[in-house]
Amino acid sequence: MSTKSQLTLVKIGGNVINDEEKLEQFLKDFAKIKGYKLLVHGGGKVASSISRRLGIEPKMIEGRRVTDAATLDIVTMVYAGLINKQIVAKLQAKECAAIGLSGADGNLIKAHKRKHASIDYGFVGDIDRVDKNVILTLLEEGFVPIVCALTHDKKGNMLNTNADTIANALAIAMSRKMVVNLYYIFEKKGVLLNPEDEHSLIPQLDQIDYTSYKEEGIISDGMIPKLDNAFQALQKGVEKVVIGSPQLIADFSLPCTLLSK
Amino acid sequence: MSTKSQLTLVKIGGNVINDEEKLEQFLKDFAKIKGYKLLVHGGGKVASSISRRLGIEPKMIEGRRVTDAATLDIVTMVYAGLINKQIVAKLQAKECAAIGLSGADGNLIKAHKRKHASIDYGFVGDIDRVDKNVILTLLEEGFVPIVCALTHDKKGNMLNTNADTIANALAIAMSRKMVVNLYYIFEKKGVLLNPEDEHSLIPQLDQIDYTSYKEEGIISDGMIPKLDNAFQALQKGVEKVVIGSPQLIADFSLPCTLLSK
Repeated sequence: MSTKSQLTLVKIGGNVINDEEKLEQFLKDFAKIKGYKLLVHGGGKVASSISRRLGIEPKMIEGRRVTDAATLDIVTMVYAGLINKQIVAKLQAKECAAIGLSGADGNLIKAHKRKHASIDYGFVGDIDRVDKNVILTLLEEGFVPIVCALTHDKKGNMLNTNADTIANALAIAMSRKMVVNLYYIFEKKGVLLNPEDEHSLIPQLDQIDYTSYKEEGIISDGMIPKLDNAFQALQKGVEKVVIGSPQLIADFSLPCTLLSK
Repeated sequence: MSTKSQLTLVKIGGNVINDEEKLEQFLKDFAKIKGYKLLVHGGGKVASSISRRLGIEPKMIEGRRVTDAATLDIVTMVYAGLINKQIVAKLQAKECAAIGLSGADGNLIKAHKRKHASIDYGFVGDIDRVDKNVILTLLEEGFVPIVCALTHDKKGNMLNTNADTIANALAIAMSRKMVVNLYYIFEKKGVLLNPEDEHSLIPQLDQIDYTSYKEEGIISDGMIPKLDNAFQALQKGVEKVVIGSPQLIADFSLPCTLLSK
């Protein structure tokens, strides 16, 4: 790999994964991206639905899943099994050399079980280290890594880690060797001043404006962890961080929110 | 990789997977095997148990799972998700650089949906082609592939394929480039003349004796597909095919059944 090759790193969430048509279109577009690329996916809604069918009511605190042992088995089945392999098989049909990974595979992402003063989140992993060489090797060999939202503790246990956080950690780690463009794909065109109005898109957002929007309560609660992650990536060496809709992957010139320092 | 490096290819089934202690001991022994190695695993009993919990009664014909769409999702979750990642995480804790794969990952094993004159097995895959270069690349990069019993049709669908058959196909494909020793690990010490008597172990079994044992009804029905697979591997270039117990992986000099042409 030549010094500072470009990597397109895309993170998709439930709005794409849970809609068969949207997923098909997205994967068609993703397969066409030229150069090195990597996909990170979540799958929380599918996990919640399977969990209920198994008689286990999902438990969330501040949008984060409380992961007891039974829930860990469910997210491991759903993220690394069902969703990851459906995406891999569909990409293979589009001549994209997808290879699915969790954070345990090749020891890609080592984490530790979260220690929290008051809340026991259970088997939730906070990331210690990403092995960028695993990704570099796979990219150089022509594979397209498809990474699900699971890590491991290197002591034999899988851990549940937020997919935005995984995308962020991978992007930062890879930016030491590559020029990384990180795309957070979700249901809107980008960050909106008014979540009800697609015309209120913020085309460019810097840290100072973001801080004041947060203080004024203009940016909605749900966006804050995503944007905190995204700004952190930008500060830690990721070349470009973009928040936008699935359509963006087909046409990178479409309206979206580009973050700037 | 030097010409004709040795590959130890081990297939484990439910008797190891379903018993936490046995699995832990087996993985400890597997991690210690020197040189290139690869593990193939099934997981049918866990899949049946999850299936029942989801309200879907497993359906088997002649020991083969009838795989409707809902069952395909279940085996994809259980084999590629739950079991594969548990094995990978446990091996990583033992300093074994495990990387989990289904047949879809890297397009490792392409299959087609079984056509059967009278029985519709559903989403069951008969293997067309193994891409030995995917395994060679991963081995050369220092990874230990952990392959679950799933293939894909290269048209976007996962398929359910018997784990013995996958081990056989991988062993044959790899034997074109490596000296492959294939170990089928199951609940007995090896092939027994009397399934109730561990002292009736057949230490060496050739094709002629096997054929007459089959005709005389000495070898039990359950062993026949496994042995047919095993002899086929031997005839198609696999160096050594052994049938034995998990203890064999810790000490290859223990009693077992060695097949010969």
